[in-house]
Amino acid sequence: MADRITLAEIAAEAGVALSTVSKVLNGRSDVSAATRARLEGELSRHGYQRRGSTRRSELIELVFPELESAWSMEVIEGVRSVATAAGLALVLTVSGNRHEPAADWVDGALRRRPVGVVTVFSDVSAQGREKLRSRGIPLAIVDPAGDPPADVPSIGSANWTGGLVATRHLIELGHRRIAAITGPDDMMCSLARIDGYRSAMNAAGLPIDPAWVRYGDFHTTGGETHTRELLALPEPPTAIFAGSDLQALGALAAATQAGLTVPRDLSIVGYDDIPIVQHTTPQITTVHQPLRRMGEEATRLVLRMADGEQPDTLHVDLATHLVVRASTAPPPDHGTA
Amino acid sequence: MADRITLAEIAAEAGVALSTVSKVLNGRSDVSAATRARLEGELSRHGYQRRGSTRRSELIELVFPELESAWSMEVIEGVRSVATAAGLALVLTVSGNRHEPAADWVDGALRRRPVGVVTVFSDVSAQGREKLRSRGIPLAIVDPAGDPPADVPSIGSANWTGGLVATRHLIELGHRRIAAITGPDDMMCSLARIDGYRSAMNAAGLPIDPAWVRYGDFHTTGGETHTRELLALPEPPTAIFAGSDLQALGALAAATQAGLTVPRDLSIVGYDDIPIVQHTTPQITTVHQPLRRMGEEATRLVLRMADGEQPDTLHVDLATHLVVRASTAPPPDHGTA
Repeated sequence: MADRITLAEIAAEAGVALSTVSKVLNGRSDVSAATRARLEGELSRHGYQRRGSTRRSELIELVFPELESAWSMEVIEGVRSVATAAGLALVLTVSGNRHEPAADWVDGALRRRPVGVVTVFSDVSAQGREKLRSRGIPLAIVDPAGDPPADVPSIGSANWTGGLVATRHLIELGHRRIAAITGPDDMMCSLARIDGYRSAMNAAGLPIDPAWVRYGDFHTTGGETHTRELLALPEPPTAIFAGSDLQALGALAAATQAGLTVPRDLSIVGYDDIPIVQHTTPQITTVHQPLRRMGEEATRLVLRMADGEQPDTLHVDLATHLVVRASTAPPPDHGTA
Repeated sequence: MADRITLAEIAAEAGVALSTVSKVLNGRSDVSAATRARLEGELSRHGYQRRGSTRRSELIELVFPELESAWSMEVIEGVRSVATAAGLALVLTVSGNRHEPAADWVDGALRRRPVGVVTVFSDVSAQGREKLRSRGIPLAIVDPAGDPPADVPSIGSANWTGGLVATRHLIELGHRRIAAITGPDDMMCSLARIDGYRSAMNAAGLPIDPAWVRYGDFHTTGGETHTRELLALPEPPTAIFAGSDLQALGALAAATQAGLTVPRDLSIVGYDDIPIVQHTTPQITTVHQPLRRMGEEATRLVLRMADGEQPDTLHVDLATHLVVRASTAPPPDHGTA
């Protein structure tokens, strides 16, 4: 109680009208940037918290950079189920990405006053995080990219282990020439998965031809292009570990175009375990990334923070595991070599 | 102005306190069912409309029976893009379905006071529609099932034409023995698509073996089971028109398991044009159902209604069209028979 301060006191201290403080709190745009910044600082310095929950809406806000990704629905369903159980409705916001930024979603969230915000990927600016903090709106990040900001609670998954178990599965089937396609080389999840792959190869005493390791985008075309190039090598790999299920579908397309049958002539392991890979021919062996559970856990985290709890640890990685389906088999020359 | 009535007058007329009317309007649960029903009736009878939009939230509410469906994301993106352009945030609600009803979402919506509600499929009870109407919250239905209630504005798509163009495409390739798998026989969209198929066959003078017409669920297993049975017929069909892309993926799996190559040995046409069918091997020829545009149009409709406009027509069907990809080809015996 001692360090509680009223908005009137903050206004007096900052030398502005109470209505100006109120405007900043409500995310209104008719306040100069300088005044806004100054008041944000004051509010934050005093750890201003709205009293009680009566002025809170009954909303949880989920923010994606874009909705295109095939696995967005998994995260949505995780967040929604926990929100519903807590009596909250889900607001779905698209923030835009580097290439196509949307109008600042944070101001909208300040107006809507959700109980908490869950973002997918870590694209909240330091300024945006400060605005949310100054209004007492907790934030947690669902972080499939493996690279969360150090000071925001986040839920990731075990990317390195995912790369390891996928590669180990192929080695156990008898493969020796195993290639890996992954995402952009500036994403930590790409690097972690590739390092897991390297460790599995090293542990089995298998050499890695530098031509076998491929960085690209996580979409189908990435998988298709790299697989075409891999199959054109003098000694092509007999198995491919793809960094996403979409890449695995691209690899499957390239293999089929080259006249190969999967898994007889080429084994393919995907990553993510999006629902569709159970419906392809063949069904794809893949690393299950617990996207739904990541959404659930991040939502539980913001709800606990909204109740005043501090998270015990800022980052948690949930386990990944291999789901063996029909796109992997022993290599063609197995048992005869 | 003449027939405007205040809440105080409604309360006086109904012999209750003003606060009780207010509770009903706000969706609070501490009002007896009988009183609530009586006041709903009064509010509706007087065409009570909240004055102005100042008390409205900046939300559009989108309601699905379940989020599992592979095409939900298309509808979400359509609603979201129009809502965002109008400065509104999207609330995503799951209502449950016949088998698994959720707590009544309508009461939640009344508390949230969205500018409008868009539901997918027509599972709003007459009572729920009345509650929304009594609060002046407009409702529109995205109706892929082809069976909207007569008194609620809805956006569908041209199911009969979809069935026609899919079948005509197969006939033009030279197919004569064409089977059709569709959804449950109590869904109008299933019947309309099958009727389109029949009309195309009849127009080409081709007979339809009753064993070729199959009703089932819209999921992968439906396509797989029926295709297995179709391929076991003494004279199996050379082409299958599937009622959904998921069924088409099931048909592809069954064909592959039977040792057939698609499209060389069997042609398959899907329905919906969900993004994933561009990433399968082969890519699926399919009927494009404009799910995103259906979401957009339904949202524009509720926004216009929220502005006081009456819709010109209660139901609009958007066009469907065929997207030819790689799962269809002339039949195996073409040119030699």
